Amino acid sequence: MKTIITNATVITMNEQNEVILSGAVAFEGSKLVYVGPTPEDLSAYDEVIDGRHKYILPGLINTHGHAGMALLRGYADDLPLQQWLEDKMWPMEAQFTADHVKWGTHLSIVEMIRTGTTTFVDMYDHMGVVGQAVAETGMRARLCRGIIGLCSEAEQQAKLQDAVSFAKEWHLQADGRITVMMAPHAPYTCPPDFIRQLVDKAEELDLPMHIHMSETQFEVEQNVKDYGARPVAHLEKLGVFNRPTLVAHAVHLTDEEIDILANYQVRVSHNVISNLKLASGVAPVPKMLEKGIRVSLGTDSSASNNNLNLFEELKLAAILHKGVLNDPVAVPAEQALRMATRYGADGVFQSEQLGSLEVDKQADLIMLDANQAHFHPVQHPISHVVYAANGRDVTDTIVAGKFLMRNRELLTIDEEKAIYEANRLFDQLKR
Amino acid sequence: MKTIITNATVITMNEQNEVILSGAVAFEGSKLVYVGPTPEDLSAYDEVIDGRHKYILPGLINTHGHAGMALLRGYADDLPLQQWLEDKMWPMEAQFTADHVKWGTHLSIVEMIRTGTTTFVDMYDHMGVVGQAVAETGMRARLCRGIIGLCSEAEQQAKLQDAVSFAKEWHLQADGRITVMMAPHAPYTCPPDFIRQLVDKAEELDLPMHIHMSETQFEVEQNVKDYGARPVAHLEKLGVFNRPTLVAHAVHLTDEEIDILANYQVRVSHNVISNLKLASGVAPVPKMLEKGIRVSLGTDSSASNNNLNLFEELKLAAILHKGVLNDPVAVPAEQALRMATRYGADGVFQSEQLGSLEVDKQADLIMLDANQAHFHPVQHPISHVVYAANGRDVTDTIVAGKFLMRNRELLTIDEEKAIYEANRLFDQLKR
Repeated sequence: MKTIITNATVITMNEQNEVILSGAVAFEGSKLVYVGPTPEDLSAYDEVIDGRHKYILPGLINTHGHAGMALLRGYADDLPLQQWLEDKMWPMEAQFTADHVKWGTHLSIVEMIRTGTTTFVDMYDHMGVVGQAVAETGMRARLCRGIIGLCSEAEQQAKLQDAVSFAKEWHLQADGRITVMMAPHAPYTCPPDFIRQLVDKAEELDLPMHIHMSETQFEVEQNVKDYGARPVAHLEKLGVFNRPTLVAHAVHLTDEEIDILANYQVRVSHNVISNLKLASGVAPVPKMLEKGIRVSLGTDSSASNNNLNLFEELKLAAILHKGVLNDPVAVPAEQALRMATRYGADGVFQSEQLGSLEVDKQADLIMLDANQAHFHPVQHPISHVVYAANGRDVTDTIVAGKFLMRNRELLTIDEEKAIYEANRLFDQLKR
Repeated sequence: MKTIITNATVITMNEQNEVILSGAVAFEGSKLVYVGPTPEDLSAYDEVIDGRHKYILPGLINTHGHAGMALLRGYADDLPLQQWLEDKMWPMEAQFTADHVKWGTHLSIVEMIRTGTTTFVDMYDHMGVVGQAVAETGMRARLCRGIIGLCSEAEQQAKLQDAVSFAKEWHLQADGRITVMMAPHAPYTCPPDFIRQLVDKAEELDLPMHIHMSETQFEVEQNVKDYGARPVAHLEKLGVFNRPTLVAHAVHLTDEEIDILANYQVRVSHNVISNLKLASGVAPVPKMLEKGIRVSLGTDSSASNNNLNLFEELKLAAILHKGVLNDPVAVPAEQALRMATRYGADGVFQSEQLGSLEVDKQADLIMLDANQAHFHPVQHPISHVVYAANGRDVTDTIVAGKFLMRNRELLTIDEEKAIYEANRLFDQLKR
């Protein structure tokens, strides 16, 4: 089955940032087989889709989140961080079963498909149900069992075992759409020796690492107090960066720390909305990009965002750094879109398969309805995508050559049921 | 004709911030006649609209913009401010005729109706066509001829005369939906004597003032150099604040200046996205609010935003100040929504008629489709509106009791024609 979408504005995000007017994209099975001008002869294709008035982009890649937490959307806002975490989030999460995670994840997947995310990173507990949800809905994801090590050694070992079992069971499953990582939650929630064990395990299983790092100033100071080093030096010493590593947040960094991250080719997930909402601060993104660090975009969870519409991160990543650094040329539109696509592919260690529309890459793509006022006059399509568009402009979401949403209709997931179950389970939680 | 919308979540934005579950809103002619629980007996109503799964809010109020500039959306981004203005904006605007302003304004009105703005402030040239567009489309607006006084005295007088003619012709027209202001463009673009003349004229016509102020650090320093005072003291001395005044931007303010603005009850339009994108900085919004200043939200033009979706300003106003001030309780959701509604009504000097859903106020309201994943679980509706929702969730927009959009269908404006004309006119401009 060979499908071609014709007459669209194709934003390839290839090395040359090529944008093809009246372009076409074709795929067969899970792979792209043609990206270029609309061909005269379409007889080789089984299905021809008219893409007039549409923009076609690589699917967006959300490199940090906790999908199950969608159940806590709006449960607590506008609180000091510790109170939010200790009085609100943790007591609720302590009651979570696999069912809560399942339906929170379904709610999150609905949102992501609707707003054009085709690959997401998830770090949470009860990851089997997350794997199941990804497999069933046709999404692509890089998943990891997030491990908090502030517990007895027996509990640590049980969690480690859980992470290993999950990794062995799910890595490269769902036709390869699911891959996994090893994920100590953070330097401040995992003792050093335990982090070392997780690194060893990652090496044994040949997996990358994912970890929260330097999200708040408080946590950096705590690290210095507890371990005599800031988080970057601390994790370097523990050997984390000897594995391919994706760190989330990276808000509070010295220039020296940026150099270390660049040297190890550590990938960074920039969670711009969550960092603002939780008053964590503003990550030094232009400096990191300048040093060649692959900075991608993450939503974090719906409890600190409060949605998973990555187009919001895309625009904010492009404008925030201009405003706070007094630099109108910081993070231009093209670079922001690269963060949401190509650099996202780097963030999930799949730059060979994802992140741009090029022949032989995976057919992960989205279509936007550009026949709306805010896409006009017709100017630079990438500017319109970054500064004027929104996730709700997405009409079609395709992963591995399969439509997950077509003309705004979800084909692989039941939104009504996800809404119903999420409310039912939330209402049963003790508050 | 009496219409009631029933069984909705009604976010009143009244003094008590009341939210009514299973609520109803009724209007007759241009006014609200009922806001409360859904009544048992609906026989008094000519039309009953089922509002199940909907949120009802006061229409949003956009307190600063230049609608005609929609024609320049995406024409120039990611440039230093002076280059953007002098090499890109001004040469294009110099070619603008009434026709360009007309179709730019139509494009902007489409966007605003679609994303839930019911009242907008506009400061531009060729304002007659803007008044015409507002009258025809059923929108509500506070309009002003923006005057740049860097020209000969004869030209100054011609512009002043144009502003006066416009004011006399359009104030309180379109069943009162159009009101006007006097608008010197900025302290740095109008000589002091000329500003004084405009203040006198505003007094004579009993109109408020609207002016750009302290948008950039550069402009503040220039003001000190040219006039020996920062912009606030300068405008105070010229008598501007003796009139009711709405200033746009107010990014660079000392504590003393904030006190002066508070004393004169000057209203401020916070243009958070434009200020970031143009690298102007971050306005001291929490400080201003603390001093009782009515800070509302503005999009500025599509050339520096690049859309007019005020829900983006709403969310960003709630999260940005938390992040840059390291204060997670700065600008809570309720306060942000007040900025977009009640304080917006203050900003256009119509707090008696607009800004909340209360009996006898104007029936300016919007409905959001809350039957979507990102509005669940059902929690605090105001949190969901501010942090999770987006302008594209708006299904119905009503101004003065008249539907401008119903079930996402525009009823008073032709989007296709606006798109066509905007592109036609843009393509003819010399670049």
